[in-house]
Amino acid sequence: MTSNWEEFYTKQKPPSDLLENEHLLNNFAAHHLKENNKVVLVTSGGTTVPLEHNTVRFVDNFSAGTRGSVSAEYFLENGYAVIFMYRVKSLEPFSRHFTAQKFLDMLDLKEVDGKPSIAVSSEYTNSVAKVLRKYKAALANGKLLQISFTTLSDYLWLLRSACQALTILKQQAILYLAAAVSDFYIPSNEMSVHKISSTGPPTISLHLVPKILEPLVNLWIPEAFVVSFKLETDEKLLIPKARDALKKYKHNLVIGNMLQNRKQEVTIISAENNYVLLLTNEQIAKGDEIERLIVSDLIEKHKNFIALAASRI
Amino acid sequence: MTSNWEEFYTKQKPPSDLLENEHLLNNFAAHHLKENNKVVLVTSGGTTVPLEHNTVRFVDNFSAGTRGSVSAEYFLENGYAVIFMYRVKSLEPFSRHFTAQKFLDMLDLKEVDGKPSIAVSSEYTNSVAKVLRKYKAALANGKLLQISFTTLSDYLWLLRSACQALTILKQQAILYLAAAVSDFYIPSNEMSVHKISSTGPPTISLHLVPKILEPLVNLWIPEAFVVSFKLETDEKLLIPKARDALKKYKHNLVIGNMLQNRKQEVTIISAENNYVLLLTNEQIAKGDEIERLIVSDLIEKHKNFIALAASRI
Repeated sequence: MTSNWEEFYTKQKPPSDLLENEHLLNNFAAHHLKENNKVVLVTSGGTTVPLEHNTVRFVDNFSAGTRGSVSAEYFLENGYAVIFMYRVKSLEPFSRHFTAQKFLDMLDLKEVDGKPSIAVSSEYTNSVAKVLRKYKAALANGKLLQISFTTLSDYLWLLRSACQALTILKQQAILYLAAAVSDFYIPSNEMSVHKISSTGPPTISLHLVPKILEPLVNLWIPEAFVVSFKLETDEKLLIPKARDALKKYKHNLVIGNMLQNRKQEVTIISAENNYVLLLTNEQIAKGDEIERLIVSDLIEKHKNFIALAASRI
Repeated sequence: MTSNWEEFYTKQKPPSDLLENEHLLNNFAAHHLKENNKVVLVTSGGTTVPLEHNTVRFVDNFSAGTRGSVSAEYFLENGYAVIFMYRVKSLEPFSRHFTAQKFLDMLDLKEVDGKPSIAVSSEYTNSVAKVLRKYKAALANGKLLQISFTTLSDYLWLLRSACQALTILKQQAILYLAAAVSDFYIPSNEMSVHKISSTGPPTISLHLVPKILEPLVNLWIPEAFVVSFKLETDEKLLIPKARDALKKYKHNLVIGNMLQNRKQEVTIISAENNYVLLLTNEQIAKGDEIERLIVSDLIEKHKNFIALAASRI
């Protein structure tokens, strides 16, 4: 069992596309530093823990990527540049509004003299146009960078590189760690090479993942505004656990949520206080999203955080 | 530990939408019996095994759903009616050619007097039209029914119901069991109610899933043509394991594939013989798909199977 982050990076191999992603991250950070933009790193989706080297089976954390992908859109709407670091096949900003199947159903095919033309049918035009406008604007402004991961190990490597790239932005950067990261993993040297045989039921021994917030806050990106998330199913554990984390890692904010009502209610927990943000049933019915409230609250806090840092110089 | 299928169905609750799906399955089977169509049940994608009742973590089997979704398209092209039983968010026939993100990138937005219109841009029109034509035809002919599952338990309940619905088709039905089904599960009564605490690394004890081919072939749908799949990473195990399965369950065919080259090569294994189907690198480069060969081979076998049954009456 290891809970030491340095040992983790020694023993687990980096993802094959790490250098390429570091290049993208560094360029993005440098560009928005020059433009004097605020930048948020949004992590999103679950991580997998492979049980075998030739991966057929893995342990997964449940996360569609809703919190992250929705929040990314609101950050963009509020002028932030967004690095969206997401689990492959989890929801992405803008495209999250549609599935590929749904797209096929929205398209009308016309053929004139054997020449096809395809349009979004009129009943869907307005709703698609609304999303498409924002998506094209984000791309045109160079405000959105998407990078992806699958395994827990990929995630931890990519997160460290992203922090290192963002340090140059100092207090202008927010880390919004919404990904559902596994607490457990199987070290590379303990994994089975082939598919585990199904002749007998195996017992899987999981190791604790190192608490990565510690080096992140203390070493990698000490000046940024760091927000972590806590998902619980047992309500009475939510605030005590969030407070423990804040004391231990000394980051800025925990956003707590219960699995059961996480789309309607969250608890914002800082060293100073804690309070609830929630949507009424009426707001939910109208399509409003709790992430609008979260991001709005956070932007206010970030503004104060930047002002405070400036006053100390 | 249980390996008894009857006990499994006693202890694991059915999915909440089972009755609804049974209704769809029965109607579909009755309609195509009347139309004298051949029907194939294609299962596709992986299954999950929840580790907790309030599911945050689960064990997953790797499967994008390529084999199943591609095969479904070829069965439709060959006149079969298709029940596509797939894991939520795995690939689906037709829409598999695109991601939602890709769709957004393909769309052009025009606004005239503030009125938007959206079209697929000309460079993509032909490729989208090709897929869209087939998709709309399948829907118009009532030839495609899609039903979905997520957990292993959902899958086993739905599979049994699908078999029961298809018995009326006798030899006209193929079961094409391409889903990557977990060999292990955690019985409902052994699952943790809340999220497993991360204070210590847990040890997870998995139970063997009952071998469902046994009741499927012997009891649920004894007259159908049944095809199972075997995925291995160790080449020398492939044919021996497939032969063992054929001897044990007495179904019609095993399609064997290696994880490493499963998009290029499969081995067709029956009681009589075994042979390889494969695509050349050139065919792969041109976008040809191994499922075209598999389905074509299978349709021939199914024809002979029906003729043989008829000759015995």
